[in-house]
Amino acid sequence: MRVAFLGLGAIGRPMALRIARAGHQLTVWNRTAKRADDFARAGDIAVAPTPMDAVRDADVIVTCLSTSADVEEVLNDGVFEAITHGTTLIDCTSGDPATSRRIAARLAAWNVAFIDAPVSGGVKGAEEGTLTVMCGGEADALERVRPVIEAFGKKIVHCGPVGAGDAVKAMNQALLALTIWGTGEALVALAKLGVAPQVALEVINSSSGRSNASMNLFPERVLTRAFPRTFRLALLDKDVRIAAQIARDEKVPSPLVQLAADLCTLSHVDLGEEADHVEMVKVIERWGQAEVQ
Amino acid sequence: MRVAFLGLGAIGRPMALRIARAGHQLTVWNRTAKRADDFARAGDIAVAPTPMDAVRDADVIVTCLSTSADVEEVLNDGVFEAITHGTTLIDCTSGDPATSRRIAARLAAWNVAFIDAPVSGGVKGAEEGTLTVMCGGEADALERVRPVIEAFGKKIVHCGPVGAGDAVKAMNQALLALTIWGTGEALVALAKLGVAPQVALEVINSSSGRSNASMNLFPERVLTRAFPRTFRLALLDKDVRIAAQIARDEKVPSPLVQLAADLCTLSHVDLGEEADHVEMVKVIERWGQAEVQ
Amino acid sequence: MRVAFLGLGAIGRPMALRIARAGHQLTVWNRTAKRADDFARAGDIAVAPTPMDAVRDADVIVTCLSTSADVEEVLNDGVFEAITHGTTLIDCTSGDPATSRRIAARLAAWNVAFIDAPVSGGVKGAEEGTLTVMCGGEADALERVRPVIEAFGKKIVHCGPVGAGDAVKAMNQALLALTIWGTGEALVALAKLGVAPQVALEVINSSSGRSNASMNLFPERVLTRAFPRTFRLALLDKDVRIAAQIARDEKVPSPLVQLAADLCTLSHVDLGEEADHVEMVKVIERWGQAEVQ
Amino acid sequence: MRVAFLGLGAIGRPMALRIARAGHQLTVWNRTAKRADDFARAGDIAVAPTPMDAVRDADVIVTCLSTSADVEEVLNDGVFEAITHGTTLIDCTSGDPATSRRIAARLAAWNVAFIDAPVSGGVKGAEEGTLTVMCGGEADALERVRPVIEAFGKKIVHCGPVGAGDAVKAMNQALLALTIWGTGEALVALAKLGVAPQVALEVINSSSGRSNASMNLFPERVLTRAFPRTFRLALLDKDVRIAAQIARDEKVPSPLVQLAADLCTLSHVDLGEEADHVEMVKVIERWGQAEVQ
Repeated sequence: MRVAFLGLGAIGRPMALRIARAGHQLTVWNRTAKRADDFARAGDIAVAPTPMDAVRDADVIVTCLSTSADVEEVLNDGVFEAITHGTTLIDCTSGDPATSRRIAARLAAWNVAFIDAPVSGGVKGAEEGTLTVMCGGEADALERVRPVIEAFGKKIVHCGPVGAGDAVKAMNQALLALTIWGTGEALVALAKLGVAPQVALEVINSSSGRSNASMNLFPERVLTRAFPRTFRLALLDKDVRIAAQIARDEKVPSPLVQLAADLCTLSHVDLGEEADHVEMVKVIERWGQAEVQ
Repeated sequence: MRVAFLGLGAIGRPMALRIARAGHQLTVWNRTAKRADDFARAGDIAVAPTPMDAVRDADVIVTCLSTSADVEEVLNDGVFEAITHGTTLIDCTSGDPATSRRIAARLAAWNVAFIDAPVSGGVKGAEEGTLTVMCGGEADALERVRPVIEAFGKKIVHCGPVGAGDAVKAMNQALLALTIWGTGEALVALAKLGVAPQVALEVINSSSGRSNASMNLFPERVLTRAFPRTFRLALLDKDVRIAAQIARDEKVPSPLVQLAADLCTLSHVDLGEEADHVEMVKVIERWGQAEVQ
Repeated sequence: MRVAFLGLGAIGRPMALRIARAGHQLTVWNRTAKRADDFARAGDIAVAPTPMDAVRDADVIVTCLSTSADVEEVLNDGVFEAITHGTTLIDCTSGDPATSRRIAARLAAWNVAFIDAPVSGGVKGAEEGTLTVMCGGEADALERVRPVIEAFGKKIVHCGPVGAGDAVKAMNQALLALTIWGTGEALVALAKLGVAPQVALEVINSSSGRSNASMNLFPERVLTRAFPRTFRLALLDKDVRIAAQIARDEKVPSPLVQLAADLCTLSHVDLGEEADHVEMVKVIERWGQAEVQ
Repeated sequence: MRVAFLGLGAIGRPMALRIARAGHQLTVWNRTAKRADDFARAGDIAVAPTPMDAVRDADVIVTCLSTSADVEEVLNDGVFEAITHGTTLIDCTSGDPATSRRIAARLAAWNVAFIDAPVSGGVKGAEEGTLTVMCGGEADALERVRPVIEAFGKKIVHCGPVGAGDAVKAMNQALLALTIWGTGEALVALAKLGVAPQVALEVINSSSGRSNASMNLFPERVLTRAFPRTFRLALLDKDVRIAAQIARDEKVPSPLVQLAADLCTLSHVDLGEEADHVEMVKVIERWGQAEVQ
């Protein structure tokens, strides 16, 4: 298929590369043109000077930007009108359901299907084509573009209507934030009381309070004081704020998710744009005046 | 060894039975005498009419009551004075560190060692001798009584000074409460938005937000609407309140653990004494006006 | 001036009546036509069959509906286009800034000014013309329509750009909710400890923790168990949710305002549509199992 | 009466001076002896070298220390035994009910009455004898020592049993913390949206969300950026933690009071020991990246 790919960020690049290598005819666009030019040298890949040029003649359009607002902005300025009727837009942005619904409604007027399809699995998963892809939208549309998604995704889950993919991704991130913070609170208090974090984790990880955070993130990243920068806190903050917004829009009292959102935002302000998401633990450590190590 | 066992509740009974079967000379006491008499018929087990009679001549005393306050109350009325100098008391109650420290200090005046040793693993783990036992106290004392603990425990972890076992247990429970509530908030909001809980869990359980709650409790107990009564919410409430107290005593700001404690308490009031801990999800469902199924 | 008034609710009616009595030429519209007809009998007041008919030829349009979404909906269906260029719309709805800004932008395209102007002071204030009116929008536009606002408002405050009136109103309501809940928590805990609420309030109201809630609402409405239905909790819930949304949109971590929003929502679900806002105290009483009386 | 006064801190000194000037025969003790010697020069005041010497022969003992734990510590080491049977101890410390009850029980064994009597009104109120005094304990005992309390207190309120005075004081402080933080959140968000704080306060202070914080503290101390150091945040933190403890002990779910306690503790860590309580607003400003001025 002819695929247009808009947004060659850290995750977008390896995804686009896998699409090209799967035999699809790829045209890319990126806001910073040099990044697109560098990327295109990787193979038989066309570079479009504008989004409008990229989408013209494409059977499938893939967007992978920072926020749904960025997607909406790129689609304005004539792109909506330039997309070929009957095609499908796959939005791999970690977006928000409300904006995705608005974009989908505008595309529907041009008979273009919209699939929100945020991914999880990181850069490594993108390179290896093992991403989990959470999809929202019509089942038929998803089936038509499944070959493109399969180029980079291994577990492809149809979550529900437009926005459902965004929503599942956001809620997963909220649970990630909750378990990092909660485990951090527990381990800082235990450290002050005289329990070594590795001993506490040995118990918790064979008991009912265990989570991905306690089983993987704390042993590998916190106790080692490595805090590798794999996923920016700034992005987790954005994701958890989307989760909090969804709970509000759906009128579900959600005191923990709401509090998690504010804890992410204040940690983001405290630790800056480059901090990794797991570094939030440092805020708890400063407040509690003890280290988890 | 001569072992006195005080408190034959749901967990205490199979623990005491395993101690007897391991060849120790067992004397039991229970507030409701009939329960002790029934239990003693299981084998060569003595029943003591009072705690004082039970502890006299024992090498090791095991207590397994509802709260540390219950332990302190039983030990008053002459029991402190009746315990043989040089022996050890193992308290398997899910207790609180402050009371455990106070009991330990009083016992120390009689040259009796104290080990707080709450367990996890449920009735099944007690019957099979596969409990995890979280121990606080002197390493020497723990070594001396390890043969008794090994009768019912498989994973025996020395967590730190007196109270450390209580503290680790309480914090594990707080994380259990946090993950049940957080996952509940997420799934109720997603259900209202149109995402089926099993689909959401399929994604979350292969992503970073997964926990014991999302991987086991929700699929087996909530989505099935089975809500089996395996561990009372009333007890989880007590445990999480201990966790919240520890964080306050250690002066660790812990907004999530504190909020979890209040969510457990209000759910406990709403659902009553017999409700299982996982039934807390029903409170979120009522507030959010959607079911997780 | 020729004034069109859309929305004859409990507050809208006395406001509209005061506008008519101040000598303005009034045309009213209400979704339920009978209410408009009944109202018109009060004097020389015209009834319009549709919003479009109401706004045609008006110099000033006043809207007073439940939510900003209601205002937007009424303005669709040709009303935007029917409004005379150069006129001003005063929206007395307790609205949300984001929707107000969107409405203002659409009106600006027709050269119509927009003032968000939510009020406080209740039905009594509307009848007596003593409302506080919080205005957002251009100062010039506000000056032009001040004579209409003065018909029902005594304290008219220009708060800032479009949405600023909505925002100040919403934040006031969030502080109202916070002080009702916080004072409720304090008095329920004190009651259980043995302090009579009137004694606690005697101290608090001469000390630093006092608020409108502690000085007026609790003595007059809670301790008397009167709970008069003056302002529905459903409306407070809506307002505090707007406040929480504003804090999120402005990226201000606001754990108390967010929590207040969820406490209002869950109380609203628990107590139903007709409950008064002060009845939230009953939820705290049930959770805490003590009464404030 | 012969009055022993233990603890000549910022508030204690002017209180003791007023007792002496009211004609009572005063003996003082202070941990730092020089402070007691300096104070005694003010008049016909005796200085005792130890607490035991101070209380011997006193009809009434007044303690005014930092915490209930400090009171308990001073009373140990023979002081309990040195107090004359039939006398009364008035504890003006901002204490906690649990420790006060424990002290009272020990004093009761010596037939000494205990009144917890924390004060509000600051140094100025102490100097002018206009303090509010919140009393817990037996009504008879309070009547007997009322002449001493009247030397420094104007509004003397009998709140309930032992601990009731502590509890009312603590809850007032929790409401103070809640209104400072809540108003801070509201004003920071409004400032970012474009509403000047003095305009927002003008509206709020004539509406339902007003409190002592919004009417007095913000206009006088925050908007002026004066932040005078009148009452240390470290002390407010201690007080609100007592309030949170009371709510937990009374099993009253109290999410706002609990959150307020953690917000005070983290602000205390962030701003240091010397910060004034109103400076907490600076934490909200840093998180929200806008100033209230």
